[in-house]
Amino acid sequence: MINARIVLASRPEGRPTPAHFRFEEVEVPAPADGQVLLRIRYLSLDPYMRGRMSAAQSYAAPVEINGVMEGGTVAEVLESRHAGFSVGDIVLSHSGWQSFALSDGSGLVKLDNWPTEISTALGVLGMPGFTAYAGLLTIGQPKEGETVVVAAASGAVGSAVGQIARLKGARAVGIAGGPEKCAIVRDEFGFDAVVDHRSPSFANDLAAVCPNGIDVYFENVGGKVWDGVVPLLNSFARIPVCGLISQYNSTGDFEGPDRWPLIARDILRKSLTIRGFIQREFVAQKPQFLAEMSQWIASGAVRYREDVVEGLRNAPDAFIGLLDGKNVGKLVIKVS
Amino acid sequence: MINARIVLASRPEGRPTPAHFRFEEVEVPAPADGQVLLRIRYLSLDPYMRGRMSAAQSYAAPVEINGVMEGGTVAEVLESRHAGFSVGDIVLSHSGWQSFALSDGSGLVKLDNWPTEISTALGVLGMPGFTAYAGLLTIGQPKEGETVVVAAASGAVGSAVGQIARLKGARAVGIAGGPEKCAIVRDEFGFDAVVDHRSPSFANDLAAVCPNGIDVYFENVGGKVWDGVVPLLNSFARIPVCGLISQYNSTGDFEGPDRWPLIARDILRKSLTIRGFIQREFVAQKPQFLAEMSQWIASGAVRYREDVVEGLRNAPDAFIGLLDGKNVGKLVIKVS
Repeated sequence: MINARIVLASRPEGRPTPAHFRFEEVEVPAPADGQVLLRIRYLSLDPYMRGRMSAAQSYAAPVEINGVMEGGTVAEVLESRHAGFSVGDIVLSHSGWQSFALSDGSGLVKLDNWPTEISTALGVLGMPGFTAYAGLLTIGQPKEGETVVVAAASGAVGSAVGQIARLKGARAVGIAGGPEKCAIVRDEFGFDAVVDHRSPSFANDLAAVCPNGIDVYFENVGGKVWDGVVPLLNSFARIPVCGLISQYNSTGDFEGPDRWPLIARDILRKSLTIRGFIQREFVAQKPQFLAEMSQWIASGAVRYREDVVEGLRNAPDAFIGLLDGKNVGKLVIKVS
Repeated sequence: MINARIVLASRPEGRPTPAHFRFEEVEVPAPADGQVLLRIRYLSLDPYMRGRMSAAQSYAAPVEINGVMEGGTVAEVLESRHAGFSVGDIVLSHSGWQSFALSDGSGLVKLDNWPTEISTALGVLGMPGFTAYAGLLTIGQPKEGETVVVAAASGAVGSAVGQIARLKGARAVGIAGGPEKCAIVRDEFGFDAVVDHRSPSFANDLAAVCPNGIDVYFENVGGKVWDGVVPLLNSFARIPVCGLISQYNSTGDFEGPDRWPLIARDILRKSLTIRGFIQREFVAQKPQFLAEMSQWIASGAVRYREDVVEGLRNAPDAFIGLLDGKNVGKLVIKVS
């Protein structure tokens, strides 16, 4: 049996290209005592992976050159020499961009009796959904009647943020790129309003749909969207920051003027809270998240979209497209 | 009787000068039914007043042109036509830069049995002390063994922040301008370490005294000090923001490079919390603050300095000096 995998060929400066990845075929390893052999079914592609391609220090170590690209996966146990797992078990793992992987069981989560398609363990019921849930409810704390704004609103995190905000009685305003995505945010995800950040009148458009200002801005984008949001923030607004996709490909030269002094002034004058986070810090809330979110999905209160791309070979292009804002909903690779 | 007062003559662009203020003498008004006439004993001078001199929107309305400059005061009731106040009562009021004022009693706080000099109601036991206490304990949440850094450490707020941090088991690192102030921060206020922000090696000096990074940065300054602090912040660091004195006189042209994208990146990577605040939002904690702080002062656990300037006429120069970083401790004007 052949293990197809994608490794990091070199570190990109700026926007990655297919040349930064390398497709390889190697032999599938045999499990040792205490190990399982996993066949990967689905691979999650997420913006944070851009950070792992760079050598810069972050909350996680970078992927090594020639190392398998990192990523969350849903897999099936193909062979087991581990007492805790049986052949056929479906598990959540962090096996990366490959079709087979060994595991000693640490970090594996069994997906027995999963309430819906198993790919959702990488999306609305997985890391992105939990990022939306924990960040919005713990940091954003939307109250009835407040206005919650989220960018990348057609994406895996953003679409969940807006729908959860509405379930808590808040008004959800989405920001998305282009009329197609905007229509999905409004019609499919049921946001109260949506604004196209590609419009030349973006800042005015956003102000028009936020007549009472913004109480929660869920930041996963950065860049120009931020500039449109800041003037509309109300006193005591909360800003959970889970991503900055617009600047992940930046090479680090940021021209002036320096925006920080005026942002700092607003932080002070408006008693703003800006709080970066990674969902795993809220892991204690995960069981409640799974219970609530499953229910919301079952009842139709929360909808989700998956953008399923067939074949591991297509992962680099799909990932580059994700950074370019090309997809709608949770991007997953169907590996096998 | 003559009421001496200082009004805002014009709005400064940049650094205020004495010409932006006007000294006036008018008749002392007579109290109507339900009013008291106050004789001001002490006037508090605080950096926030620079904001009130500008027309820009903030958390409070600007002082009107030809209006009496705003400010906290300690006063004595000279005449009373209000059932709640007797002649001779000492009260905390917000009477501004003048020697007499009328009040209908709203907002007055009696300072009966005040545990120490009444001027402290404007300093260590007043707004600045409470700013330190509430911001540090509620937002900063210093834990045993953590490192707390505060700028303007010889000032009214900063000196209290460091001492309270030590009482909570944290290491207190102060930043001050010049060797004299640094000596006071170390020897009189008992900080664990102090760094001179005027030193050309400031950033390295700060790193050297923060070998375990920074867990809480109490921001009341902004500017270059911030740039030295950010690289040292630990994951999950908390940053209460109560002031930005270094930029209050800025005319708003901030040259590049744009620092915000890298600050935003650090907020994300390090899961930072940045939180602007004004002490009055924590008013429910005031009784506990007064009880604890009085005890700390009585026992010598917290020390304070007051910089008492005689005469209302000297308020403009003293205030300009405050913005220039010229004084040590709480600046008050002895009005009468």
